[in-house]
Amino acid sequence: MVETKVLLVGATGATGSSIIDGLFQAGNFEIFALVRPASMDKPVVEILRQRNVKIREGDLEGPEEVLTEALRGIDVLISSVRESATQQQDQISLANAAKRAGIKRFVPCGFGTITSPGGIMRVRDQKERVYNHVKQLWLPYTIIDIGWWYQIAFPRVPSGKVDYVSFGVAEEIIGGGNVLSALTDMRDIGHYVAKIIVDERTLNRMVFAYNTVITQNQIYNLMEEISGEKLERNYVADETIRDRVAQCRLLAEKDPTDLATLHSQLLAEHRLSWGVRGDNNPDYAKYLGYISSKELYPDFEPVDFRGYLKSVVEGKAKNVYIDDRSVVVEHATALEATR
Amino acid sequence: MVETKVLLVGATGATGSSIIDGLFQAGNFEIFALVRPASMDKPVVEILRQRNVKIREGDLEGPEEVLTEALRGIDVLISSVRESATQQQDQISLANAAKRAGIKRFVPCGFGTITSPGGIMRVRDQKERVYNHVKQLWLPYTIIDIGWWYQIAFPRVPSGKVDYVSFGVAEEIIGGGNVLSALTDMRDIGHYVAKIIVDERTLNRMVFAYNTVITQNQIYNLMEEISGEKLERNYVADETIRDRVAQCRLLAEKDPTDLATLHSQLLAEHRLSWGVRGDNNPDYAKYLGYISSKELYPDFEPVDFRGYLKSVVEGKAKNVYIDDRSVVVEHATALEATR
Repeated sequence: MVETKVLLVGATGATGSSIIDGLFQAGNFEIFALVRPASMDKPVVEILRQRNVKIREGDLEGPEEVLTEALRGIDVLISSVRESATQQQDQISLANAAKRAGIKRFVPCGFGTITSPGGIMRVRDQKERVYNHVKQLWLPYTIIDIGWWYQIAFPRVPSGKVDYVSFGVAEEIIGGGNVLSALTDMRDIGHYVAKIIVDERTLNRMVFAYNTVITQNQIYNLMEEISGEKLERNYVADETIRDRVAQCRLLAEKDPTDLATLHSQLLAEHRLSWGVRGDNNPDYAKYLGYISSKELYPDFEPVDFRGYLKSVVEGKAKNVYIDDRSVVVEHATALEATR
Repeated sequence: MVETKVLLVGATGATGSSIIDGLFQAGNFEIFALVRPASMDKPVVEILRQRNVKIREGDLEGPEEVLTEALRGIDVLISSVRESATQQQDQISLANAAKRAGIKRFVPCGFGTITSPGGIMRVRDQKERVYNHVKQLWLPYTIIDIGWWYQIAFPRVPSGKVDYVSFGVAEEIIGGGNVLSALTDMRDIGHYVAKIIVDERTLNRMVFAYNTVITQNQIYNLMEEISGEKLERNYVADETIRDRVAQCRLLAEKDPTDLATLHSQLLAEHRLSWGVRGDNNPDYAKYLGYISSKELYPDFEPVDFRGYLKSVVEGKAKNVYIDDRSVVVEHATALEATR
């Protein structure tokens, strides 16, 4: 069997780690990771090497010719770069190099919730600029969004027994708490990716890969049922979210380089999109042109959300990909900062 | 039979006129036109009335509530507004009103050549902002692009016998003249629209409706063959087009309100897109996500390009929609201005 050669940019991040796991489990891929010259000796890279990930040296901010060489012979290029200030736009030269290297499919950084470009979420608009650039290059692509993670979607319980895996970003219920939003277990991202990137039906398309659709009230109900504890429900009005977004945008305008502000903005805009507007659901995704993972892979059985919550309450959940889940931690920190 | 109620914004323009003709010929539509209060007594509006087009008074720049009332009871709203400085963005409040009025399908102004958003053509980016707004409203839509018009795609011949229908905008051959580009007879636009707007397959999709695909050299060859005259071929290097675009953008930056500059920019960017980049073709459209009219309506027989050119050379062509084809004239004027 000829293995598909896949190179990851952002291999050590949360999404990248799930993708590497998913590709290894699928078994039909030769896996490469792009690593910055300065990071070649870092322990996380050593772990990749030990796992049989082939390391290629390259820098998104370096010359395009060098980047092009680093991509030689690769079939599928996947980018899961950080949603911080500049990394999304670094994908412009990555796309140029991919075109020059003859990459057969580029998966630019998506891996987020469903929303529309044009002023709702800064990070979505940054991604849109990358997508438009990819399209101008006539580069074969697939955009994959995955909704919100199981791992950050459940609230704490009074006994504190789920604190060991909680990031504290689900302690607010937005609006009436009845907006449907799509969730995916982080560990399933890689399984979806392994299917999608070798699927002709997904070429030059957007794919929405998600496990389940649920409201915040339903999540709280589930947690009460499973834990047997009564949860406090901290409802936050839509208007408060809108105000928070406006405030973050003002601050970001004053200092566009302040990472704490940018993270607060990201978090507030996420809530605006999935919590207030209700963007992050399969019907809206379909309207926007996404193909659904349910339609593509009806037989795939992702991790069940109730089962996951049960493992959380029983103390059996793991902080998956925690070592490098700095983005989540930053989100959590950013949330605190906006309070 | 229940007739579909269609309201046009921009009914007196070239595209709007073709659409009204096409809808009347199809026979299953009740046709409305939105007319500005100040234009209610204009002769062109009187002609619409005589043709049994129902006039509704409304102003895109007026209050959204008033605009909403003007759209009451309408099933399909079609916008073919001018590609000048401000009219595209006026569609933002039109879309808001359409959402409030419960419009079942909005066709925002497309009706152009295929290209990608993100810095290639200013007017395409203005349209993209409208499209994004429509998507944020979760408003049912169809985007229809139609390529370049037959009526402005052929060159003059030395004898002057086609001058009676020439706009003088095909006197340059871009690059080597071998780039394929899609053409449509203006008179077919309405026929396509009449099919597309009642077709469930085109809901929330982009449609590329075009008659034929041809290079500039092939057009010149055809004209020589049909007219029996030898044509001069004025090749213009890709680099010249790029320079022209850069120059127009500089001027437009200095004075964003100067219509002559904006029209020159529009024309130069069109040439960059279809002539240099080769965007305006069915393969690229498919890559961008468009459904093709060939795929949707394989039995439809549009006006044949060779037959059209024959009628032009024989003196039998008509300046279709000429009375209101001011945009074309402006384009032609703009071209002169850039020389």
